[in-house]
Amino acid sequence: MNQINTRPGISITDNRASVWVWAPEAEKVSLKLNSKSLDLQKAERGYWHLTSDEINTGDKYKFSIDGGDELPDPASLSQPDGVHGSSEVIDLRAFAWKDANWQNPGLENYIIYELHTGTFTSEGDFRGIEAKLDHLVSLGVTAIEIMPVAQFPGERNWGYDGVFPYAVQNSYGGARGLQTLVDACHAKGLAVVLDVVYNHLGPEGNYFNGYGPYFTEKYNTPWGNAINFDDAGCDAVRHYFIENVLMWFRDFHIDALRMDAVHAIKDFSPVHILAEIKSSVDSLMQETGQKHYLIVECDLNDTRYINPIKKAGYGMDSQWIDEFHHALRITAGGEQTGYYSDFSGIDHLAKAYNDAYVYDGQYSPHRDKNFGSKATENGGEQFIVFSQNHDQVGNRMLGERSSELFSFEMQKLMAGAVLTSPYLPMLFMGEEWAETNRFMYFVSHTDPELAEAVRKGRKEEFAAFHAQGEAPDPMSEETYENSKLQWNSLSNDKHKLMLNFYRELIALRKSLPPLSKLSRKETKAVADTATNTLTLT
Amino acid sequence: MNQINTRPGISITDNRASVWVWAPEAEKVSLKLNSKSLDLQKAERGYWHLTSDEINTGDKYKFSIDGGDELPDPASLSQPDGVHGSSEVIDLRAFAWKDANWQNPGLENYIIYELHTGTFTSEGDFRGIEAKLDHLVSLGVTAIEIMPVAQFPGERNWGYDGVFPYAVQNSYGGARGLQTLVDACHAKGLAVVLDVVYNHLGPEGNYFNGYGPYFTEKYNTPWGNAINFDDAGCDAVRHYFIENVLMWFRDFHIDALRMDAVHAIKDFSPVHILAEIKSSVDSLMQETGQKHYLIVECDLNDTRYINPIKKAGYGMDSQWIDEFHHALRITAGGEQTGYYSDFSGIDHLAKAYNDAYVYDGQYSPHRDKNFGSKATENGGEQFIVFSQNHDQVGNRMLGERSSELFSFEMQKLMAGAVLTSPYLPMLFMGEEWAETNRFMYFVSHTDPELAEAVRKGRKEEFAAFHAQGEAPDPMSEETYENSKLQWNSLSNDKHKLMLNFYRELIALRKSLPPLSKLSRKETKAVADTATNTLTLT
Repeated sequence: MNQINTRPGISITDNRASVWVWAPEAEKVSLKLNSKSLDLQKAERGYWHLTSDEINTGDKYKFSIDGGDELPDPASLSQPDGVHGSSEVIDLRAFAWKDANWQNPGLENYIIYELHTGTFTSEGDFRGIEAKLDHLVSLGVTAIEIMPVAQFPGERNWGYDGVFPYAVQNSYGGARGLQTLVDACHAKGLAVVLDVVYNHLGPEGNYFNGYGPYFTEKYNTPWGNAINFDDAGCDAVRHYFIENVLMWFRDFHIDALRMDAVHAIKDFSPVHILAEIKSSVDSLMQETGQKHYLIVECDLNDTRYINPIKKAGYGMDSQWIDEFHHALRITAGGEQTGYYSDFSGIDHLAKAYNDAYVYDGQYSPHRDKNFGSKATENGGEQFIVFSQNHDQVGNRMLGERSSELFSFEMQKLMAGAVLTSPYLPMLFMGEEWAETNRFMYFVSHTDPELAEAVRKGRKEEFAAFHAQGEAPDPMSEETYENSKLQWNSLSNDKHKLMLNFYRELIALRKSLPPLSKLSRKETKAVADTATNTLTLT
Repeated sequence: MNQINTRPGISITDNRASVWVWAPEAEKVSLKLNSKSLDLQKAERGYWHLTSDEINTGDKYKFSIDGGDELPDPASLSQPDGVHGSSEVIDLRAFAWKDANWQNPGLENYIIYELHTGTFTSEGDFRGIEAKLDHLVSLGVTAIEIMPVAQFPGERNWGYDGVFPYAVQNSYGGARGLQTLVDACHAKGLAVVLDVVYNHLGPEGNYFNGYGPYFTEKYNTPWGNAINFDDAGCDAVRHYFIENVLMWFRDFHIDALRMDAVHAIKDFSPVHILAEIKSSVDSLMQETGQKHYLIVECDLNDTRYINPIKKAGYGMDSQWIDEFHHALRITAGGEQTGYYSDFSGIDHLAKAYNDAYVYDGQYSPHRDKNFGSKATENGGEQFIVFSQNHDQVGNRMLGERSSELFSFEMQKLMAGAVLTSPYLPMLFMGEEWAETNRFMYFVSHTDPELAEAVRKGRKEEFAAFHAQGEAPDPMSEETYENSKLQWNSLSNDKHKLMLNFYRELIALRKSLPPLSKLSRKETKAVADTATNTLTLT
């Protein structure tokens, strides 16, 4: 890409604004700002450009293509009035960082704490998180992982319905709020992982089709047509997401990205978009001297994703392994319905300890095919394990956490299983004190048809689980409020006990070299199915 | 696959028939044969099986699933009454081969002659081809490439509408006819390449959906849903096509397969189906001591397809490069419409000589993206070039060959360009004497709606070409008859002259080491755009 060396959208440098927008079919593109209309100039490869000193921080704007409806900027950095409103000009570089001495720890030292901004605290925003950092430091985790913050419709959403990948959710505190939080985390010695979604865009407030072929009909995903990473016009789409990655690292000092469901990124190009992202991040790291990690959620058990680029992999640093969770949950007595039907218990858990992937070539009845590849050559830090996470809790019809499903002692055993593994452990917010509130699925779409479709979709999804009771209404504010952590639980002895247990366990993991050095080759799990016992040596 | 170690369909061994069919959703599968109904037994993974001595060569049969309509066998070896009729039991192993001394030549010695069975001779069948082998031997080509022969609807089809990948078109002479032809080719020192289609199945007589999930909705191709190579149930589909490859090599003594449009094979498995085919063929070659090659038509300029498996490639031996053709045609004065718009002439031709791919990373305006990868490490025998082929001729609205589009002397120059390249040359039937009959697109669907859709589709396809005149009717028998070679042309001096020119040129290529050894590194093309001259050193 010679045509556009900077981020799409509006950037401010020395009081001068640079505007880039991709609209390859357009004959005319105008910037509607305050009461002005500024015409952009056609550049190469479908881009339109303008530099102007009439554009200032705080200005609200939209674009009009060929004189049509005014649309928000697909690379908007701020949507102060929500997904359908105007975009706002902000200057990401204006933040005064105080983290010059921060060093991203080695990935092997990551102990991750996944949280959802809206429900982590009663405030439901970045400031709320900041107020709880001391709790996290004393717990002993070394990184927080923030569920997606890209602007979504309304104020209640897990984050996977984001439609402005460059704009930080206004109700959480926007870009400035996130920068402040990251700075505060670094001051307290915590790394920050940000969850980002590059496999689809949400259904409401999605104005991309008004600009260009961001989607392709070549591939279908669970969320409709796939994002266009290899069809005509794909270079601009690739550039859009690569620049997004670079923005989080460069302008928000994010330490690692967790890329959502990368198996739904369909790309048959000679260089897969993930490999191109990796190369771009390598260049950035060369330039800045800062380390950044790329973590993927991937449902394919395919080491191609985490193998180095020189071995024809995509070069991702680490990936989630849900299969460890599934095996652990069945071992703990969880029901074998739905996707759990592939997992038999302690022998599979032992396999996850030993081989990372439970299915590494065998026939999977649930998937009805031979599934997976062998991960023999991959290091322990390349796999992230957990006994619960937002999906495994929230995708249950009722959103029950382990606290409701397993005994107190079993919860401790599950925590032990995760924290003694030769992989990177991850906790889900509140599990450290056995939070009893559920974490339910919630949205706040403003389009009534869509809201109804979401309700219906949720119901259909649970056919395989045969769960009892009525599904909570995802649109209801109550569902959201009831999903929030109850910090006052910590005055209760039982919850304090669990918190202390987690603290001790984490401290133990850090202090004992056999636990902290993640040597897969020196760790061996042996299952005794008769006694349902697993021995780690 | 432990469940089925043999070919699907019906095989005869020692007068006993073994029947395998995949019908994963079925409760009951019956074989309807003569006036009998034999129930199959359920085996693992959705397969159904039967061994019986009540089934004999020549018997006609269908299957009934759960008591429903009787359907032909998806792995039928013979469809004597066409695509909608019964399947026929035949014994592929009964043929008495006389080619024990045949040795498949090194791929670098292949000089390929592409032909279409129906239009190569007035007979329009395998016997017709056999009668012309002496012509081909005296021409000097070393291999014939037969356009697809899998059973298609009616008697007129290029072959890409085949719906029984295991059955040889009855009107061509069926399985026995093909075996006889291959044996005759080997006796005359000619190798046989067979064109096979693994990226889609034809629209008429396609009974696959009655059996199982042979298709997946995950991916869309120009021909509808993609064949299921990586979705639930894919193992049986993969097995089906792998066994098909092995059948051609083992039971038909085919020397190489040319796999059609493999870019439309969508497979995100850890092991791509082409790589799995390669491994299976490697095992077969170990077993039999015979060499077999895998050639692909691929529109991606991605060396992953032709790189060895140990370098994370798919291990294909060779691939077509249409770009050489496109550059050559523009250099020769061809019109720059449609996909030719990406090609500028002699500089691109020089690039094809030097780099194989014209686009190896640059921006392609026609594709509207950066396109291709560098093929620096791939040998000359990994690329097949031509100045015309069935597609480049027949996909023109009127089907004009080079003989009609270029001067006599220019045709000679184009032949020279192909036969002096450091790649494998391929001729299209009749070009050696500048055949004047067109090679048009023809079908003989029996479904009237489909026939109309094909007519309509053809017209839309030519929008970009702005070709003059009326499109020939693909359904008309006249279109087919007028596409046949006119062998009596050879009594004409001009055609004789061209034939002699080709003979001399091929003989020259074989006798001169700089031409025959395909050393890409020692061949260098330099273009002089001012004089439209290319120098090979």
